[in-house]
Amino acid sequence: MITHEIAHVGSVELLTPVPDESLRFFTRVMGLTEVGAEGDSVYLRTWDDYEHHTLKLTAHSTSGIRRTALRTWSQDALERRVKAIEEAGLGVGWRDGDPGVGPTYVFRDPDGHELELYWESEWFDAPPELRPALKNQAQAYPARGVCVRRLDHVNFLSAEVEPSTDFLINVLGGRTTEQIRLDSGDISGRWLHFTNKSYDIVYTRDWTGANGRLHHVAFATDTREDILRAADIFLDHGVFIETGPHKHAIQQTFFLYVYEPGGNRIELCNPCARLVLAPDWKPITWTEAERAKGQAWGLKTIESFHTHGTPPL
Amino acid sequence: MITHEIAHVGSVELLTPVPDESLRFFTRVMGLTEVGAEGDSVYLRTWDDYEHHTLKLTAHSTSGIRRTALRTWSQDALERRVKAIEEAGLGVGWRDGDPGVGPTYVFRDPDGHELELYWESEWFDAPPELRPALKNQAQAYPARGVCVRRLDHVNFLSAEVEPSTDFLINVLGGRTTEQIRLDSGDISGRWLHFTNKSYDIVYTRDWTGANGRLHHVAFATDTREDILRAADIFLDHGVFIETGPHKHAIQQTFFLYVYEPGGNRIELCNPCARLVLAPDWKPITWTEAERAKGQAWGLKTIESFHTHGTPPL
Amino acid sequence: MITHEIAHVGSVELLTPVPDESLRFFTRVMGLTEVGAEGDSVYLRTWDDYEHHTLKLTAHSTSGIRRTALRTWSQDALERRVKAIEEAGLGVGWRDGDPGVGPTYVFRDPDGHELELYWESEWFDAPPELRPALKNQAQAYPARGVCVRRLDHVNFLSAEVEPSTDFLINVLGGRTTEQIRLDSGDISGRWLHFTNKSYDIVYTRDWTGANGRLHHVAFATDTREDILRAADIFLDHGVFIETGPHKHAIQQTFFLYVYEPGGNRIELCNPCARLVLAPDWKPITWTEAERAKGQAWGLKTIESFHTHGTPPL
Amino acid sequence: MITHEIAHVGSVELLTPVPDESLRFFTRVMGLTEVGAEGDSVYLRTWDDYEHHTLKLTAHSTSGIRRTALRTWSQDALERRVKAIEEAGLGVGWRDGDPGVGPTYVFRDPDGHELELYWESEWFDAPPELRPALKNQAQAYPARGVCVRRLDHVNFLSAEVEPSTDFLINVLGGRTTEQIRLDSGDISGRWLHFTNKSYDIVYTRDWTGANGRLHHVAFATDTREDILRAADIFLDHGVFIETGPHKHAIQQTFFLYVYEPGGNRIELCNPCARLVLAPDWKPITWTEAERAKGQAWGLKTIESFHTHGTPPL
Repeated sequence: MITHEIAHVGSVELLTPVPDESLRFFTRVMGLTEVGAEGDSVYLRTWDDYEHHTLKLTAHSTSGIRRTALRTWSQDALERRVKAIEEAGLGVGWRDGDPGVGPTYVFRDPDGHELELYWESEWFDAPPELRPALKNQAQAYPARGVCVRRLDHVNFLSAEVEPSTDFLINVLGGRTTEQIRLDSGDISGRWLHFTNKSYDIVYTRDWTGANGRLHHVAFATDTREDILRAADIFLDHGVFIETGPHKHAIQQTFFLYVYEPGGNRIELCNPCARLVLAPDWKPITWTEAERAKGQAWGLKTIESFHTHGTPPL
Repeated sequence: MITHEIAHVGSVELLTPVPDESLRFFTRVMGLTEVGAEGDSVYLRTWDDYEHHTLKLTAHSTSGIRRTALRTWSQDALERRVKAIEEAGLGVGWRDGDPGVGPTYVFRDPDGHELELYWESEWFDAPPELRPALKNQAQAYPARGVCVRRLDHVNFLSAEVEPSTDFLINVLGGRTTEQIRLDSGDISGRWLHFTNKSYDIVYTRDWTGANGRLHHVAFATDTREDILRAADIFLDHGVFIETGPHKHAIQQTFFLYVYEPGGNRIELCNPCARLVLAPDWKPITWTEAERAKGQAWGLKTIESFHTHGTPPL
Repeated sequence: MITHEIAHVGSVELLTPVPDESLRFFTRVMGLTEVGAEGDSVYLRTWDDYEHHTLKLTAHSTSGIRRTALRTWSQDALERRVKAIEEAGLGVGWRDGDPGVGPTYVFRDPDGHELELYWESEWFDAPPELRPALKNQAQAYPARGVCVRRLDHVNFLSAEVEPSTDFLINVLGGRTTEQIRLDSGDISGRWLHFTNKSYDIVYTRDWTGANGRLHHVAFATDTREDILRAADIFLDHGVFIETGPHKHAIQQTFFLYVYEPGGNRIELCNPCARLVLAPDWKPITWTEAERAKGQAWGLKTIESFHTHGTPPL
Repeated sequence: MITHEIAHVGSVELLTPVPDESLRFFTRVMGLTEVGAEGDSVYLRTWDDYEHHTLKLTAHSTSGIRRTALRTWSQDALERRVKAIEEAGLGVGWRDGDPGVGPTYVFRDPDGHELELYWESEWFDAPPELRPALKNQAQAYPARGVCVRRLDHVNFLSAEVEPSTDFLINVLGGRTTEQIRLDSGDISGRWLHFTNKSYDIVYTRDWTGANGRLHHVAFATDTREDILRAADIFLDHGVFIETGPHKHAIQQTFFLYVYEPGGNRIELCNPCARLVLAPDWKPITWTEAERAKGQAWGLKTIESFHTHGTPPL
């Protein structure tokens, strides 16, 4: 069993047809910091990210996620994983990395989502105006908008969940912490982790049968209070709140879902102090009947959760 | 016994020798909103204030508090209180009110602090860019810096506590909720309220024997988490944190004290859900021995609490 | 205009057909403390109540609220209000008060809900095992279950809202802070306050046309985090969660609604630092269209909110 | 470089000269659950521990920590680490594990603290009365006292910090996240982690020169609010609060330190969402001058922090 080859999710590239509005959302409302721009893309960072950037926001004809970057544990791990991906026939090839990132290997999961692996990463060196008071912090707390702390996870939509998650398990060393098994026996959602966080990458079924779409990208806040406060901020800024705040039964995450102006679903999440430390964690499998009960405290799962993905079809 | 003549503390005028730095502190760090300027003064408001402004910040040769405004319960109450003040020989006279405020009667407490009473008050009508999403809120949540909700209380320093508090009790209808009695029998601190808040105006002894000085002005936050978050914001902005966050034994307020750039001590406070609803509240009297135990959870009362007041001597 | 005659809501008497289960709910799950029993009733208190008890829980053939007690501001206020009630023809008469309560005048609102007024009240003197560490607190924090701080408000159902609320306004000095006006012009909900809390007594329309029923009784928690924590406690104890946690648009209260085992709806509420301090508060009137938007952050108002009341019909 | 051989800290054995009082502290005040007793020991668990127990509390002539258990990542990892320990000459030998734990290898760090490694671990199967509502949780939330979520870390005192930490680094694969370097060049404190938590085992200098002592054992809470609430609970239960709540500059942990009745220092800690995900984390080294500034928000490091350890000398 492959373990500890992937260190964590590094960054994501989101596409938006309304780049100015999306940029305003991520900087003014979410509280990310702009650290550069290149072509049609702007690079943004959360205040607790040790790397150059957390989000690459790219102007495009439509919405969706272009690429998800995973940092490997080491140069050796990078080489081993590239070899395994190539053997699986899903490699795309080496690319120059984005700013702050070294040689990058691009590949696709069986559903077609684009991912990349990299090892070399330049640590963020805060300029004077972003310098934090405490030297064990990447940059000063922005104190503007929601102020999310870090990228937490990516939730892909996939026509079929098992091929893509099996690929991440077998080739990258992902491990299942929780999943949904339909009465038919099919897995309709699977939560994978590489870290002690209880999930880093999630796949849920795309009921339209489309490939390569995004369900949501999630950012972690320091506290649940930050999420309650965020709901007020979203309300005042006219950001569409899809559902929440509430607590998921699956993974017990406290959540809030909104759509950024470009249409991509964004989650704010907070797991309290929950971590998966067990090396022999036994995956939790939820049945359809259990899922029908809704979220932890009884909120029904919102219908659009099963229909809205980006790009729209 | 006079009751319910004063509705609440309305606003305060603070003096600062470094107006630009103080203004930056109140807007960028504390999250108040500027609503006007006149002469050497800038008018600022907290987001939950229904009136025109909460704070009048005035450039001056030194720091301190110039005037504390109390809104009466009615026009009749205003007239009754002015009469009583005049009978007490402490009236200064009628003045035109500041922006948003009607006819204003200025007076002094026995220690010399300047106060004013007014009844007419223009409700704040938020311009489009400050309009809140919910119509039962005065303005949109600024989502910038600490974002204090409202002015909570003023704590005056007084050479002697009893004359000034007796004046507020007898002439304005203040009521004592808690106080400190020294072994000598002297009252060295007294907490008065006009509302269901457990205090609105506080007098503590000025050990220098000076008159008319300020101990601190306090702003309420929505949550204790807001105060913890504020401590990080103060740290990153280089604001001097004097003491806290911690919980006062007296009044059980969760607190954090800082000095604004002009030198005035500012408190962030949160009482959780504490209210004094009892019409026959029995004042709590703390002894010197009890005070020696420090704050609620054991933090020793910081020495500068007994020495720092504004203006400096 | 009558003002400040009523100090606050004192206590409520709830009826339950399953007294053991209800008692267990209020003590083990909600964290109230039992302070006595008499006949079919048990007396319970929240830890921040200065009076003898907060809740009288009475075994009965069905659920519902029997009596709501309001403490007057003074003996004179009590006598004045009794006179006014008698003039309105809604008095029932003087009764011996419950434990800790002096002479009590019972009356009914136009919809038939039983209320009482009293002035004399014995302050709670905590026995050694309940003695708090801080002398400005009524009893030690129970640290068991939810640990609600105090009774917050009562929400009556009423066949017609206006007659009952007009009665409380005209005879008791209640003041409207917010209300719902239907397109028909009818008021279908009205929030009244006697204190600086933004509401103490609420009337909402009973669409069944029945009289004297209860929508819910609400207890305040210190923090919103207490409510999130409570939701987990309710979940583990099998308590039915009807809706929440979420934030009301009306009054902006953070809420969670459950049914106690006897069927009565219980709210946990937290207003953050919101207070109504303005003596000339302008009532907020919500339209049907505004109400159709649901709660503050978009949660649809749950259907049972319009149908479930106690006793059941 | 050895990595990922140790999965996490599993449990600790604490010694107490007043076992009944200590047991009462851990169950009633801290909210742990008793799951068994054997000889002079009682086994206790936090509600989020997937293993049999979190704490073994043993009656003894004095206080202190007897043994700290680390779970390996696998059986192979266990065998590799035992071999390395034996090569380092610090092994004690194989023992039968405590209840729920398989074959256990006991050893000592260079300072003499007793540790154990184990792989086999029986997952906790909650009896009906402790069964949680959500199946991805080990047991129901106790809703009694502080309700700590899990064991977070152990902080040993050591006559010299470097030999012991070098041993854990070289033989067990610990990694340094932060440390204190005195002007003399000596390391006086070092924070090691095996997980994505930013520390799991800490060594700080024992200025008395004694060996094998304990500075503190820390338990994590879900929120900072839980720690504020805990401070009130400690106050009402007469538990000695040494310092806090406040935020450490090192590791930025929100903390509260108390002494359990047996004298052992216990920390409540909450890191918000802080995790160390970087595989190439660059250890943060604090200087004496930086340490002199005190904790994050300015609280001076309490003197007893440098003198109190268990057992007392």
